[in-house]
Amino acid sequence: MNATASETGLAEPHLAEVLAAVGLDVEYVRAEGNTLYRLDEDQREVPVLDFVGGFGSLILGHNHPEIVAFAQDLLRSRLPIHAQFSRAPHANRLAAALNSVLSRELGDDERYFAIFANSGAEAVEAAVKHAEFDRMLKVAALSEEINDHVARIRTLVRDGLVVPAAGAHERFGDADRSGDPVRDIEELIARVDRWNAPRLSRAPLFLAPEGAFHGKLVGSVQLTHNEAFRTPFKALAAQARFVPLDQPEAIRKTIDAERTVLLDLAVEDGTVTVVERDFPVFCAFVLEPIQGEGGINVVSREFAEAVRKACDAIDCPVVVDEIQSGMGRSGAFLASSLIGLRGDYYTLAKSLGGGVAKTSVALIRESRYRKEFELVHSSTFAKDGFSSLVALKVLELLEADDGRLYRVVEERGRSLRAMLDAVRAEFPDILKDVRGAGLMLGVEFQDQSGSTAATIQGLSRSGFLGYAVAGYLLRGHGVRLFPTGSAANTLRLEPSAGLTDAEIAQLEAALKDVCAVLRDQDEGRFMAS
Amino acid sequence: MNATASETGLAEPHLAEVLAAVGLDVEYVRAEGNTLYRLDEDQREVPVLDFVGGFGSLILGHNHPEIVAFAQDLLRSRLPIHAQFSRAPHANRLAAALNSVLSRELGDDERYFAIFANSGAEAVEAAVKHAEFDRMLKVAALSEEINDHVARIRTLVRDGLVVPAAGAHERFGDADRSGDPVRDIEELIARVDRWNAPRLSRAPLFLAPEGAFHGKLVGSVQLTHNEAFRTPFKALAAQARFVPLDQPEAIRKTIDAERTVLLDLAVEDGTVTVVERDFPVFCAFVLEPIQGEGGINVVSREFAEAVRKACDAIDCPVVVDEIQSGMGRSGAFLASSLIGLRGDYYTLAKSLGGGVAKTSVALIRESRYRKEFELVHSSTFAKDGFSSLVALKVLELLEADDGRLYRVVEERGRSLRAMLDAVRAEFPDILKDVRGAGLMLGVEFQDQSGSTAATIQGLSRSGFLGYAVAGYLLRGHGVRLFPTGSAANTLRLEPSAGLTDAEIAQLEAALKDVCAVLRDQDEGRFMAS
Repeated sequence: MNATASETGLAEPHLAEVLAAVGLDVEYVRAEGNTLYRLDEDQREVPVLDFVGGFGSLILGHNHPEIVAFAQDLLRSRLPIHAQFSRAPHANRLAAALNSVLSRELGDDERYFAIFANSGAEAVEAAVKHAEFDRMLKVAALSEEINDHVARIRTLVRDGLVVPAAGAHERFGDADRSGDPVRDIEELIARVDRWNAPRLSRAPLFLAPEGAFHGKLVGSVQLTHNEAFRTPFKALAAQARFVPLDQPEAIRKTIDAERTVLLDLAVEDGTVTVVERDFPVFCAFVLEPIQGEGGINVVSREFAEAVRKACDAIDCPVVVDEIQSGMGRSGAFLASSLIGLRGDYYTLAKSLGGGVAKTSVALIRESRYRKEFELVHSSTFAKDGFSSLVALKVLELLEADDGRLYRVVEERGRSLRAMLDAVRAEFPDILKDVRGAGLMLGVEFQDQSGSTAATIQGLSRSGFLGYAVAGYLLRGHGVRLFPTGSAANTLRLEPSAGLTDAEIAQLEAALKDVCAVLRDQDEGRFMAS
Repeated sequence: MNATASETGLAEPHLAEVLAAVGLDVEYVRAEGNTLYRLDEDQREVPVLDFVGGFGSLILGHNHPEIVAFAQDLLRSRLPIHAQFSRAPHANRLAAALNSVLSRELGDDERYFAIFANSGAEAVEAAVKHAEFDRMLKVAALSEEINDHVARIRTLVRDGLVVPAAGAHERFGDADRSGDPVRDIEELIARVDRWNAPRLSRAPLFLAPEGAFHGKLVGSVQLTHNEAFRTPFKALAAQARFVPLDQPEAIRKTIDAERTVLLDLAVEDGTVTVVERDFPVFCAFVLEPIQGEGGINVVSREFAEAVRKACDAIDCPVVVDEIQSGMGRSGAFLASSLIGLRGDYYTLAKSLGGGVAKTSVALIRESRYRKEFELVHSSTFAKDGFSSLVALKVLELLEADDGRLYRVVEERGRSLRAMLDAVRAEFPDILKDVRGAGLMLGVEFQDQSGSTAATIQGLSRSGFLGYAVAGYLLRGHGVRLFPTGSAANTLRLEPSAGLTDAEIAQLEAALKDVCAVLRDQDEGRFMAS
């Protein structure tokens, strides 16, 4: 509470040092639209053009006037914010509104039930938990079915109606036969049990593409491909198998490599044989239609089709994570709709809260929904009146005028991208790639680890080139953008739908300048503060 | 967006059915202090006295006027809410303010670093991840140390300076000795490696008391004792070992039962012997000083001392979860300070957001803090300007007038408890126990499964008696309170510090009435709607 205590830096001081090292440790005092304001030495506001957009949370911009006014009205109205275990009319209205949008975009009326949460990672955890709840019910049903078969066959053998088949023991490399059918079937059952027991309790696996990012909680961090984020916590939670995004054929192979069968007994032609039953190893395939943190990688239609086909074949749900790409960011409500990918689950967060509230949701289609899940999962802060109504207001703004905002995002994205493509055409030696959709774009810089300028070479080799570029653009041009966490040479651009031509021009000048500096290998200018 | 869609109930409809079955499916339209308002058939507001208090999130009451006004001002000021990767002055001020309070209450100046999150469960996950990060660094250091010893001893043996001890192989039940010291040491090293490898990669364990509740995300749900919440998700995450709260001596036994040793080589008197090194199996002991969801169980000073002693002996951090009991709820800022328990970590949430914002924090003492953790853990919504400043305002209100509010909670809690004790004295056949501290109290009903009234017996046997009592109190007396999730006969009372004598009297009348109805076994009246 005392003034100097605020200087001690107890909220992640090491991160602050890292940011300071590249000149990103700025304090912002006001925010509107795509602009953050800092104070200069004379305490005058200096605008900074923000392309970070709350890591994709601000499709409507910082402090959108209608959202802010609406939030103030809610507070003024003394709305019950926390009234757990009562009717949740606002959460239900929000779920209904989300369903309207989904059914229009998917062209299908199947309902999606909503499990609300507070952050993107929490929505992923809810989806993961529901998928595991579903899988465990399937495992229990399969196990019960096998037990029923075993009990029935035991009786049939005792009654002398069937006998174990001659080759039934061979699977176990066990040639000994007692000759006594009853003793023989008991041995067979014991072997089947011994085979099944460890497999029934094996940990599930998840599937995800390389480059995946789904948050950093205990479960979700294991779906996040980046090893620095994931591996220190590996012993805490179930693992994922990662598939390269450009190798759709690898999905099937990865699934096959983990195939696990349980053994069951069946009667064929009056004899008892051992048959295989597929065990549901995989809990879910989780993927972002456009990877954010992984480097703005757009999933191809071909990959999406391969995911769907492979998952259908093993009855594994597809969780489409639209936390960053959804809510209109791609030019559609769901980026996955642009590649024809239908999710069994969707996760939404970030822009859902309109930049003001914290809310997220896991949507689960009716045909896969397990209603008993509602009695075992909950969160004190989720489904609250405030965030539900703010999110409803956000949806209202997105959907207004027959979805004008989606078209704006699409058109603004096209303008921004045209500029980026033009700069790349001018500096192909500096800019390697421009990719993305709508207002979720990435600009990949060429690797500079062969640079003759020692500083630039060093930054590139240590993975800090993107951050140094960010520092240069902020210092020299008042433009704020960051590399993605897991693709350090790719700058991520996620401005709001309100992006103006003047803002695009400001970024253009800034990018051309940094490209020229890098082309000149002018490390003095590059690093000048 | 259409009006009828709101009726379809897509946000947890099954839970809504369950609430409706006991008459708890009320819609509230306004909230202030300890009062929620519903509308009657003529659309007039009817007050309901709320002892649920957002499951402990409302030590300041619903929509506290100063918090609401402050939040409105923040929105009006166009404060940057999401400005990730910049200076975080508000989060740092909040961390500093929390440190001031802690250092006063703990009487110690050691600093606690703050990892912010969005919900209580997220703070627990951050604590769990940090504890595992720390444990893995310890494992890596131990492994490296052993490798160093092995390399040094291999050289010493090759140089003929030491020889393997005569009994060195005995541990492995291996009497064969080649007689060649170099070959012998290589065999010994191979056996040590084979012993260590599987142990180095074993999953960690957590310790927690029976009745523990720490949230329902993938990692935190495994620290939650209730089997219905935990076991369906068991295959997803690392497990906990639970210790009965009334058996402090069980802590040491539980730790001993899981003891795992690595083998190392050492030189003693010129010979090489195999020595044991303790492997850090346990990640953390996580406990609430007053269990909330588990039934309002106050941890004894004796249990707390046993936790500290056992954890110190194995260098295992103690995570004190003050999500529900903290922020003044017990009459002190930290309920753990009342039983002399010092945490290596603390988690705070619920009332930290003042009933308006969603925020939480894991506080980690400097001597156990691993600053590299900051680079691998983050959350888009955490550390935001809005929730940080609201939480600062909450702390300001708690600490005002030399901590007047803590004294108010203590005094109000005493009055509430005196009433509860008196009702219990009048109805010992109906009320089994009253327990808790400050304004975190529990009233346990006697089991009614032997009731002669069929409905009451049935409700009691199916674990729904507490909910039926809640429905009766709501319908008949406009008083809202619920049983705890894991102790279905215990009603939890967590009103705000603004609790009035009139509110206590209203609850008293309601409780006496339901006790009389239960004493009379008047199931007709008990179930009448």
